[in-house]
Amino acid sequence: MAKQKPRTLSGFMELLPRPQQQMERMMELLRRSYSLYGFTPLDTPAIEASEVLLAKAGGETEKQIYRFTKGDSDLSLRFDLTVPLAKYVALHYSELAFPFRRYQIGKVYRGERAQRGRFREFYQADIDIIGDGSLDILNEAEIPAIIYQTFTALGLRRFQIRVNNRRILNGFYEMLGLSDRAADIMRTVDKLDKIGPEKVAALLTGEELGLTPEQADEILKFIGIKGSQGEVLASLEGWRGRSATFDRGLDELTTVVGHLSGFGVPEDHFAVDLTIARGLDYYTGTVYETALLDHPEIGSVCSGGRYDNLAEYYTDKQLPGVGISIGLTRLFYVLSEQGLLNPALPTAPADVLILPMTEDLAPAVALATRLRGAGIRTQLYTEQKKFKQKMSYADKLGVPFVLFLGDDELAQGKVSLKDMATGEQALLSPDEARDRVLSAVAAQALVPPIAEK
Amino acid sequence: MAKQKPRTLSGFMELLPRPQQQMERMMELLRRSYSLYGFTPLDTPAIEASEVLLAKAGGETEKQIYRFTKGDSDLSLRFDLTVPLAKYVALHYSELAFPFRRYQIGKVYRGERAQRGRFREFYQADIDIIGDGSLDILNEAEIPAIIYQTFTALGLRRFQIRVNNRRILNGFYEMLGLSDRAADIMRTVDKLDKIGPEKVAALLTGEELGLTPEQADEILKFIGIKGSQGEVLASLEGWRGRSATFDRGLDELTTVVGHLSGFGVPEDHFAVDLTIARGLDYYTGTVYETALLDHPEIGSVCSGGRYDNLAEYYTDKQLPGVGISIGLTRLFYVLSEQGLLNPALPTAPADVLILPMTEDLAPAVALATRLRGAGIRTQLYTEQKKFKQKMSYADKLGVPFVLFLGDDELAQGKVSLKDMATGEQALLSPDEARDRVLSAVAAQALVPPIAEK
Repeated sequence: MAKQKPRTLSGFMELLPRPQQQMERMMELLRRSYSLYGFTPLDTPAIEASEVLLAKAGGETEKQIYRFTKGDSDLSLRFDLTVPLAKYVALHYSELAFPFRRYQIGKVYRGERAQRGRFREFYQADIDIIGDGSLDILNEAEIPAIIYQTFTALGLRRFQIRVNNRRILNGFYEMLGLSDRAADIMRTVDKLDKIGPEKVAALLTGEELGLTPEQADEILKFIGIKGSQGEVLASLEGWRGRSATFDRGLDELTTVVGHLSGFGVPEDHFAVDLTIARGLDYYTGTVYETALLDHPEIGSVCSGGRYDNLAEYYTDKQLPGVGISIGLTRLFYVLSEQGLLNPALPTAPADVLILPMTEDLAPAVALATRLRGAGIRTQLYTEQKKFKQKMSYADKLGVPFVLFLGDDELAQGKVSLKDMATGEQALLSPDEARDRVLSAVAAQALVPPIAEK
Repeated sequence: MAKQKPRTLSGFMELLPRPQQQMERMMELLRRSYSLYGFTPLDTPAIEASEVLLAKAGGETEKQIYRFTKGDSDLSLRFDLTVPLAKYVALHYSELAFPFRRYQIGKVYRGERAQRGRFREFYQADIDIIGDGSLDILNEAEIPAIIYQTFTALGLRRFQIRVNNRRILNGFYEMLGLSDRAADIMRTVDKLDKIGPEKVAALLTGEELGLTPEQADEILKFIGIKGSQGEVLASLEGWRGRSATFDRGLDELTTVVGHLSGFGVPEDHFAVDLTIARGLDYYTGTVYETALLDHPEIGSVCSGGRYDNLAEYYTDKQLPGVGISIGLTRLFYVLSEQGLLNPALPTAPADVLILPMTEDLAPAVALATRLRGAGIRTQLYTEQKKFKQKMSYADKLGVPFVLFLGDDELAQGKVSLKDMATGEQALLSPDEARDRVLSAVAAQALVPPIAEK
C-alpha cells in the first residue's frame, strides 16, 4: 500500500512525551495559581460564528483568522480568548455573579507567517475580572500578586512586574495640550530603548508631530523618571494638580503600589515603568508587563491591563474589567530554547515499572493493583523480551523505580526495588516498597518546571 | 453603536461556571486515573494537513469533516484522536519507547446534523497502548481495570464492562463456512435486542444472506449464550478444536477474564457478551463496551478494542494496539440530563470570600495573602455595595465560608468566619479560621462528580 508521509503542520507545536509532561505540569500550576485567587475555569468553543467573532476585529488580526464555511455557516477559529469572553459575558450576563473572575487556558489560532518561535495554534492562559458597571481599584492592585505567585510557582525567580497607568499618560499629554497626538507620540516614545533620546526628540519635533523643543524635553524628562517605587511616585507628584485625569491615574497607581507588600509581592520584583502603554485604544487604567531579567529579548511574558468596556460590541451594559494573558506556547518554546526547563522535573509516565520474572503473572498483577490503590502510578511490563531490553525500556521511560518480582522474591513474600537514580536494589516487603516509592513521589511533587541557572 | 447579538453555535457546548467546574473535576479525575496506569499525556494539534488526516477516512466521516484552505494549505480539523495518534507514532517512532502508553483528552470536530445531545465540537478522552511488532495479551486484560477504576473514581457504581473477542466471532463464522458473509451477519445479529430472534432468523435465512435454517439456529444459539463469566467460557469450550482463530480468541478471552480479579474488577461489574462486535474492519481481538445499568438507552459510554495495525497508512511498521475512548462531552451532557451530576460537588470559585468591613483594606489584603499561602482559594470582595448585596454575591458563588473583618475583629486580632451551609458564625483567630476552612476543603476533595440516585 502506498503510504502517506506523516507530518505535522509548521507553526503547530507537537511535543514528545517528556516536554509534554513539562507543559502539563506548567498548566496544572497555572490552574492552581489562578484558582487560589478565586477565578473559575471557563472553556468556550474554538469555533464561533464569524459575525460574532469579528464584531470588532479588523486590520492585521482579521487577515490572520482561520475563516471558512460549513454548510450555510460562516465560521472562524478564535484568535484570542478575550472576544469569546466578551461574548460569553454578554450572552450569560443574567446568570453570572459580578465581579466575575474567570480563567481560561485554551488554544487560539492565527495564520501568521511561519517563522521560528511563531505559532499558528497556541495556548493562551488568561485571567479577567469583570465588573458590572464599576470595578474597585483593589482588583487592579491584586493582579501583580497573581503574576508574582504564578511565576514563582513555576520556578522563576529573576523576573520583574512592570506597571503603569494609562490615565497618567493621557493626563500628562492633556497637560501639554497634546491629547490629539498622544497615540502617535507614545508610539514614538516607545522606540526610546532602540534609538535613544536624541533621535526620539528629533522625531517628536519633526514635521509629522510638530512638537516644540520644550514639549519634547518635558516628555523625555517624564518618560525618563526612574528609581524605586517611592521615588517614581514622588516625582510624579510634581505634576499633580494640572489634569484631573493625571491626578486620578496617580491616585490609582499609588493605591496599586501601596498594596504590593500586603499582597506579598517583594519590592525587587516590581517597578513603575512610565514607558509602558500596551496598545492605544483598549486599556484605560493600570497596565502590566512582565520581563524575564536575564532575557530582555523575549519581551513581556505576561501582559494586560484595565479596560472600561469589555463587551461593547454585544451589549449596552458597561462591563469594566482587568485582565492579563500569558502566551503559554511561546513561553514554553522560549524556556525550552533557553534551557530553562528543569531537568529535575519528573517526566516519566509512571513512578514504578513492574518487571515480572515468573511465568505466572498473577502476583505481578496483584502487586500493580495494590500499588495503584495507594496512588502510585504503576506500569506493568509483560512483553516477551530479554532482560536487557526490559531495562532499556525502563531507562527510556525514565521511571525512578523498577520493581522485580521473581520466584525468589515470591518465596519470601518480598519484592526487589531498584532505585534507578542510585542503582541501589533492595529486597523489601510490598508495604516497604510502596512507602519508599510514595516518599520519593512526595518529594518530587515540589520540583518546579522551570529552573534558572 | 449597533450591537452584534451574542450567540454560541448550536452543537457547541458552552457551560456556565458551575457545570464547568463539574466538567473540570471529571477531566482531572480522568487524568489522574489514566496516569495511575502509566499513560503519558499527549496534545496534538486540532488542525492537520487534509491529506494526512484523510489518508484513511471516507464515507460518512469525511462528509462531516471541517475542511478549509488557508493560503495554499488544505487543512482539516481532527474528527477523532486516533488518526492523529497514528500520525504521531509514525512520525516520532524512533523517539518513543514501546509499548507506548498515551492518554489524550482533547476536542474533536464533526459537522453532524444538529440535534439534541449531538455535538459538533466534543471532548474525547482516549487511552491507547501501542506495541512495536507485538503486544502482550496482558495489556488487553488490563483495560477493564482501567475502565472500572475510572468510572468508580467519577462516582459511578451501577455500570458493567462488557467484553468480547473478535477472533471468537470470526472463528465461529469460519466454522460455519460463512466467513465471506460474517460482516453482514454480524450487522443483522446486532439487531437482536431490537427486533427479536425470530425476525433475525428470518433475515439470516432470507434471500440476501441465504443461510440455512440450521446455520441460523446455530448462530442464534451461539449469540444467546448467557451466564456468569465461567458459564459463558464453559459453553464456548464446546466449540473448541474446529477453528484455530476461534481457539486463539477463546484463549485470549480466558486470559482476560482470568486476570480480572487480580486487577481489582468485581465480578458483577463485568460480563462476557458475545453480541459485541464494535465495527467490522478495525478491531481484531478483545473488544469493550461499558453500559450504565440504569440507562441502557444511552448506549456504551466507554468503548474500544484491540487492533493489529494502528498506522498502516503512514508506515510499514506493524504497530498493534489496544485502546478505549470516552465521549466525554456527550457523557457529561447525558449525566446532566439524567440528574446524575453530584450537587454536593464543590463548584464555587473560592473556598472563602473575605468581606472587609473597614475603610482601610490593608488587614483584609494581608489576611487574603496569608490564606492563599496556606493553599486556600480566597476571594476578596471590595466593591462599594450594601451588605445585603455582598451576601447575595457570596450566595451566588456558593462559597462555603465568608470571612468578615471589621473594627471589632481587628481590635481583638480575630476574624468572624461564617459557615454558609449551617449559617453559624464564629469569632476565631486567623489560624483557627484557616484550619477550619482547610479541613472543610480536605473533606470536600473526596466528593465525586457523579452521584447515582
